[in-house]
Order: sequence, then C-alpha cells, then structure tokens
Amino acid sequence: MANWMSALIGSDLIAGIQNSYELLQPLANPWLAEISEAEVEPLVLASVLLSLIVVYLAAKLGGELCARVNLPAVLGELVGGVIVGVSALHLIVFPEGGGEVQSLLMNFVGMTTGQAPEGLLRVFQGESEVISVMAELGVIILLFEIGLESDLKELIRVGPQAAMVAIVGVVAPFAVGTAGLIALFGIDTIPAVFAGAALTATSIGITAKVLAEMQKLSSKEGQIIIGAAVLDDVLGIIVLAVVASLAKTGEIEILNVAYLIAGAATFLVGSILVGRLLSPYFVMVVDQMKTRGQVIISSLIFAFVLAYIAAAIQLEAILGAFAAGLILAETSKHKELEEQISPIADMLVPIFFITVGARTDLSVLNPLEPANRAGLIIASFLVVVAVIGKVIAGFVIFGQPGVNRLAVGVGMIPRGEVGLVFAGVGAASGVLTESLDAAIIVMVIFTTFMAPPLLRMVFKTDDEVVAMPSADLEVAEEVESSPEAS
Amino acid sequence: MANWMSALIGSDLIAGIQNSYELLQPLANPWLAEISEAEVEPLVLASVLLSLIVVYLAAKLGGELCARVNLPAVLGELVGGVIVGVSALHLIVFPEGGGEVQSLLMNFVGMTTGQAPEGLLRVFQGESEVISVMAELGVIILLFEIGLESDLKELIRVGPQAAMVAIVGVVAPFAVGTAGLIALFGIDTIPAVFAGAALTATSIGITAKVLAEMQKLSSKEGQIIIGAAVLDDVLGIIVLAVVASLAKTGEIEILNVAYLIAGAATFLVGSILVGRLLSPYFVMVVDQMKTRGQVIISSLIFAFVLAYIAAAIQLEAILGAFAAGLILAETSKHKELEEQISPIADMLVPIFFITVGARTDLSVLNPLEPANRAGLIIASFLVVVAVIGKVIAGFVIFGQPGVNRLAVGVGMIPRGEVGLVFAGVGAASGVLTESLDAAIIVMVIFTTFMAPPLLRMVFKTDDEVVAMPSADLEVAEEVESSPEAS
Repeated sequence: MANWMSALIGSDLIAGIQNSYELLQPLANPWLAEISEAEVEPLVLASVLLSLIVVYLAAKLGGELCARVNLPAVLGELVGGVIVGVSALHLIVFPEGGGEVQSLLMNFVGMTTGQAPEGLLRVFQGESEVISVMAELGVIILLFEIGLESDLKELIRVGPQAAMVAIVGVVAPFAVGTAGLIALFGIDTIPAVFAGAALTATSIGITAKVLAEMQKLSSKEGQIIIGAAVLDDVLGIIVLAVVASLAKTGEIEILNVAYLIAGAATFLVGSILVGRLLSPYFVMVVDQMKTRGQVIISSLIFAFVLAYIAAAIQLEAILGAFAAGLILAETSKHKELEEQISPIADMLVPIFFITVGARTDLSVLNPLEPANRAGLIIASFLVVVAVIGKVIAGFVIFGQPGVNRLAVGVGMIPRGEVGLVFAGVGAASGVLTESLDAAIIVMVIFTTFMAPPLLRMVFKTDDEVVAMPSADLEVAEEVESSPEAS
Repeated sequence: MANWMSALIGSDLIAGIQNSYELLQPLANPWLAEISEAEVEPLVLASVLLSLIVVYLAAKLGGELCARVNLPAVLGELVGGVIVGVSALHLIVFPEGGGEVQSLLMNFVGMTTGQAPEGLLRVFQGESEVISVMAELGVIILLFEIGLESDLKELIRVGPQAAMVAIVGVVAPFAVGTAGLIALFGIDTIPAVFAGAALTATSIGITAKVLAEMQKLSSKEGQIIIGAAVLDDVLGIIVLAVVASLAKTGEIEILNVAYLIAGAATFLVGSILVGRLLSPYFVMVVDQMKTRGQVIISSLIFAFVLAYIAAAIQLEAILGAFAAGLILAETSKHKELEEQISPIADMLVPIFFITVGARTDLSVLNPLEPANRAGLIIASFLVVVAVIGKVIAGFVIFGQPGVNRLAVGVGMIPRGEVGLVFAGVGAASGVLTESLDAAIIVMVIFTTFMAPPLLRMVFKTDDEVVAMPSADLEVAEEVESSPEAS
C-alpha cells in the first residue's frame, strides 16, 4: 500500500522521510525497539492522553465555530480533524499515513518525557492502534445511539421506499460512473468497475449525525435515509467483495457473494426477531441487578455481542450496534439508556470524526502538482456522478406525499470512510492507477464535506415551505439547545 | 522480564509454549506478520469487542454475586478478573503474561472469523495494547470521579492527619519488612530493601472504590484515607525511584530523587492553586458553548491535561486526574458533571479491575509446587508486616475524637497494581530472587483481596457502635440503591 500512500502525499520531502522509514523497517523490530517494553506502556498512555486532548480541542473548536455560522457541528469536527491531521498540523497521524517522523505529537511526547523521538516508533504504533480502535468504538456507539433514537415500526413501514432508494442509489452511480470512465476517459474495464463501485456506498455515520443535530432523525425522511443507508452499507460490502475478487482473480466468486448476501439478510432479520423475543428477559435481568451501571453495562454487552457477530460474518460491526439500538429502543429501559449513552457518545464519537478528517490527505487537491491534474479531471466527473446518482435515488420514492425527496437523496451523498476503503483495497490490489485512485479520494472528500451543509439547506427550505415544526424533540440536547437546558 | 514470568507461571507446558514463542520473536516481525495489515485492523476491533464482552460479563457476574452476600462489588470484579485471566480461563491475557497461544479469546476470534490462530499474534498484541490503555483510562476516570466527590476543604483540614498516616504507613512496613527479611531469612541488603519498599505503596483505586460503594467517601475517615493514599502514591513513586537506582547502580541518585520530590510537591500544590484561579474561566467558556457534550468534553480536556503533565514529570496520570476532579468539584458545573461522568466510569472502570484480576497469577499460591514453598513462607511474613504496618499508621491520628482509626488503617492495606510494579521492576533488574519475587506477589494478592471485605467489616462495626447514619448521599446510585431509583 506504500506506493499508493506516497502517491497521495506527493511531496518529495515527505516521500524521502518515508523511504528512510521503510528502509529502517527490516532492521528495527518495533516490539524490540530502542526503549524497553516496561518504558513503552506509560508512554503509550501519555500519548493517548495527549491525542485525546488534541481530538477534543479540535472537535470542540471546529464544532463551535460551525454551530455559530449555522453549519452542522459534525462538519466542524471533520474540518478540525483535517487541520490536526496529515494535511496540516501532523498532530493526529497514523503509521500507514507516512511514518513516525512526521507525528508532531510524538515529538512533543518525546520532548516532555525526555525520550528521543527516534525511540518512539513502538509508542507511536501503540498510540495509533488505541486511537483507531477508540474511533471505531465511537462509530459503534454512534450507530447504537442512532438505533435507540430510531423507530423500528416506522423503519419497517418505510422499508420498501428505503430499499428502492438504496438500490437505485447503488445502481445509478455505479452504471453511469463505470460507463463514463470507459467511454469518456478510455479507462480499462476492471479499474472502471472498481471506481464505479467506490461511488456506491453511503457513509451512514455522517448523515445520521447531521440528522440527529437537526432533530430530523425520527422524521419520515430521516427514517428513510437511515433505512436506505443501512441497506446501502450492506450492498456496499457485497459490491466490494465482488469487485475485489474481480480485481484479484479476474472473475466473480459467486459462492462468496451468495454467502455474504445470505449472511447479511439472516443477520439483519434474525437479530431483530430474536432480539425482540429476548428483550423482555433482558429487562427482567437488569431489574434484578443491584450494582452500579446495570442498565448501561447490560446494554453494552448486548450491543457488542451483535457488533461482534456482524464483524465475524464479514459484515460491519456498526450494523450490529444499530440493530441492538433498534431492539432496546422498544424496551422500558429506553429512556434511561438514552440518557446514559449520551455522555459515552460525547466522549467517543468525536474521536471517529476527527480521525476521519485527520486521515484525509488534501494534498491530492493541489492542482499545482502536475501529477494531480489527471486525477482532478476524473475526480470532477466522479463527484458529479456521485451527487446526481444519489439525488436521483431520492426521487424514486413512491406513494409518500409530503416527503422531501430531495432531502432523502442529499442525505445519501456522503461517501466518507467507506469510499476510502474502496480506494485502499483498489490501490493495494494494484488495480487502480495513481490518478484514478486520487480521483476516488477527491470524490470522497467532496461528497463527505459538502453533504452536511447541503442537507441542512434542503431541510431548511422544507421547513420554510411547509412551515411544519419538527415533532421529534426526544433527541437529547443538541446543537440548538442552550447549555443551561440540561 | 521473561524469566520472572515463566517463574510465576510455573507450569512446564506453558513454559514450553512460551519458549517456542520467544524463539519465534526474532523471525517474525509482528508488524509484517502472516496476515496483511489491512486484515489486521478489523480483527483487532473484533477482538476488543469480544474482550469487552468478557470483561463486562465477568465484572457484572462477580459484582452481583458479591453484592448479594454483602461483600464489596469491586472484590467480585477482581475475582471475576482472576477467573477470566491468566490463572483460570485464559480469556483476558496479555503478551507479557505468557505468549499468544494461551489466549482462548484469540482462538475464538480465529475460529469465528476463519483466521488460523498462528496468524493472530499481531492482532493479539493490538488487542492487548487497546485493553491495557482502556484500563488505564478507567482508573484515570475513577480517580477523576473520586476527586469530584471529594471535598478539597475537608481534605486540607485533615491534611496533617493524612500526612502522618501516609508517612508512618510507609516507614513502618518498610523498616520492619527490610529488617525482618535480613534478620529472619538471611536475605541480602539490596533485595531486602527492595522487598521492604514493595510493602509501602497503597492502591488508591481499590480503597476509593470500596469507600464509594459504602458511601463513606466524604466521611472524615474517607477523606483521611484518600488524602493519605494520594500522598502514599507519591511516596511510593519516590521510594521506587530510590530502590530502582539502588538496584541498578548500587547507589542512590540524590538529584533524581530531589527532582521527583520537588516535582510532586510543585504539581500537587501548583495544579490546585492554578486550577482554582482558572476554574471561573472554565465555567465561563463552557457556558458559551452551544454544541452537545460541552460540560463533559471540556472537563475531560482539563482532566487529561493534568493527567498528562503528571505522567510527563514521572508522577502518575491518576494524580493529575484526581487533582482535576478536586478543582472541578468546587465549580457550579459539579452536579451536572458528576451525572455525566457516571456512565463513562461505568463503562471504563470495570476494565481496570478486571485486568488487575486477570494479570494476577494465582499459581504462585500452589503449595504443591515445591518451588513455591520458600516464597510462601516469606510471603506470610510480608503479609503480616503489610497489614500491621498500615493498621498501626491509622492509630497515629491525633486530635480527632470519634474517628475510626482502625478503619483508616485498614483502608490503607491494599497494595494492588502498585505492588506488582515493584515486583516487576525488581525482577527485571535481576535484584529479586524467584522466591522473593513470588513472595511479593503473594503479599499483593492477599492485601488486595482481603481489604475490601475487611474495610466493610470495620466500617459496619463503627456504624453499629456510634449509630450515626452516613450523611453523604451525594454519591450517585451505588450498590445498595435499588435499580429503579435512578
């Protein structure tokens, strides 16, 4: 994956540093590094503390600034992440993003603890591992919270619409994107299919967060978007499996794909059916417990079990967490649980959005770099297809008068981290050329960062036209509420 | 440190597995292991999820069982940790505790994700790193919460008493322990000094948790114990620095010790003075914020900054978190913050106690193993000195009629993870013989596991005699409260 990364970084200085870092690799076993293992653990803890301080400062500064100019706070967190990340301050960076020497945070840890920066490779790797997993736990908790605030009955009612939106939102950008790349840019079939596939997946996290901030999560549009995004996530995983095996072996492993589809369907339907059967016993057990934290810990066990199962059958952990939230939303513990999950989400979710921003390398956007230009031209095509493909999907909704179809389509626009997974897998398998890979990343950046303000805009127009006040004030203290309210 | 570990494990089978693991080390760079880095990250996440499920199940089962037979819940968590840890089920184990092959949890991850167990070394290391750091964050949040529930003015008022308790509680067991080891067991001076030093430190976490469970934290005894335990922690760090340099070079580095003492004093006094000056601005900034989680995130930033500073100047991160809690307890955000930190503590604190239990290797207690016998005899001497030395310290309190001096002394008994650090450093530097090292570990196990029930017993007697109801019901829902109360 190193050639992909250095292509993205695109700076000779950084590439030079990275090369020397790679040369060091076979010599230095990081687990037997210059500092002893007994010294490593306190340094990893100190680095994690410092990273969390940076994450929270960036999240709050970005979020507050955006909230003041009436933009979604989550956009501020993403931009805050970009500023502290690999594109600017190099405070929150990851080993796969270009080696240890560039982590200013590690230099600071070295300085304040009297440890030479060269000795900190092992510490850096440990810190990155912990922050990555905490970010993943953050998005798991976010989806659990989204599930808790969703309404299973409403979700089932809008199911057919959500399925239509999801399917059109996958097929339209894939077909137009692939055909366009072949016809307009003369790209080979397999890389074109791969890039087309990268246009399909929706980042459920970003859209769901914006909807929650606007208290639109339990609106009809909100529930269609959430339902479609969940299905989209499943479809995205299947599409990725198909194109990855296509790239690897030149053919599609039907059995593998069939296994994935069956697994996903069984999991989503099965977990909700079995969960609803078991949830009375869950409440009974919780009521019997006498020690502190009985509701939250029992719920986390339930959410993590479903998340683990989803991850183990090659789906995504967030799908399991979402299903767990949906099931527990129907129990009598629902209100108490929502209150208790809120501070945990406050603590973990920003780590996710900041690291998404921090991993985003804006240097691919620099048109002064000749290597970027081919990618930027393809990218503008991909951005147009990515946006139109999803907006069209919103308009296929049938039999739902009064639904803001534009809002549904716009809600599906952000590709977020899911698109980056496609770019990463494509580059690692050698299918994507550097310019095509860069184009996918530019497309992901644009769709991810434009969706939050766009979504707010289309919902605002809606409110002005219909003059219908939002009915769902259940959502815990959000952007607009004053701090004294809680 | 490997010889210490294999000495502790004491089983030929396990030692054999560990040896083959060590032989593999120079060959296999874990960062370039059998599975590619792109496959590692989801597996690390899945393993962390599974570990958390095991941690929470063990914590709740242990805690609930103990609560039902009127023992402190934290004892149940420690025992639960032992059961899932290296002594029994091998579900939560750490690389330094004997190599990957023994982690049944990793085998399960391998089985359910279709990954061969041999390929999981890198995943196992990542998972252990994350769980270790989350446990450390747990004890940081615990001490922050303890600080929030403490009363700075009361702590200053009982300061002289706490200082007396701390000093006598360090000097008495150290002097008696060292002299006894030399006189009774014919042990050399330097190892005897090291073992004596391991008798000094108090595990503030375990005592504070038991006090909180009994709602005794803001009682006079509670505040003396907390104050003394904090000072003890500082003294313990200084003692460790002294004996470690003594073991390494044969002499005491006066400058280093003076630096530590000055740093500790400056930090504790300085952070509280500066913190009190700045806290009105903190409240002002929080009141200006409009986005979700403003109180909790701002407070975590503050706590983590102090924790980082404490860690950076070679103190412990928990001291910084405790100071931050003390300072924020005096602000108007105090009540709101206590409510919000509670679910975060519920989520993270059990990870700490379970891992303390999981790392405890009970095989040193097996008298059938001839190698253990010498250690067990020394251990029984150390346990007696450890208990009497701290109980005596409680009785030096002066001018405080009505204070339960026995309770204060008993509160200082648990050595917990601090004692294990001494054993680890001692073994790593080669100063301690295997039997002496094992004896220290046995002493730590006994004092840690006996303190919670003892503490509850002495406080109960107190209540019966004086018939004075506990006044501090501020502490959020604890053991005795019914689940419906919240």
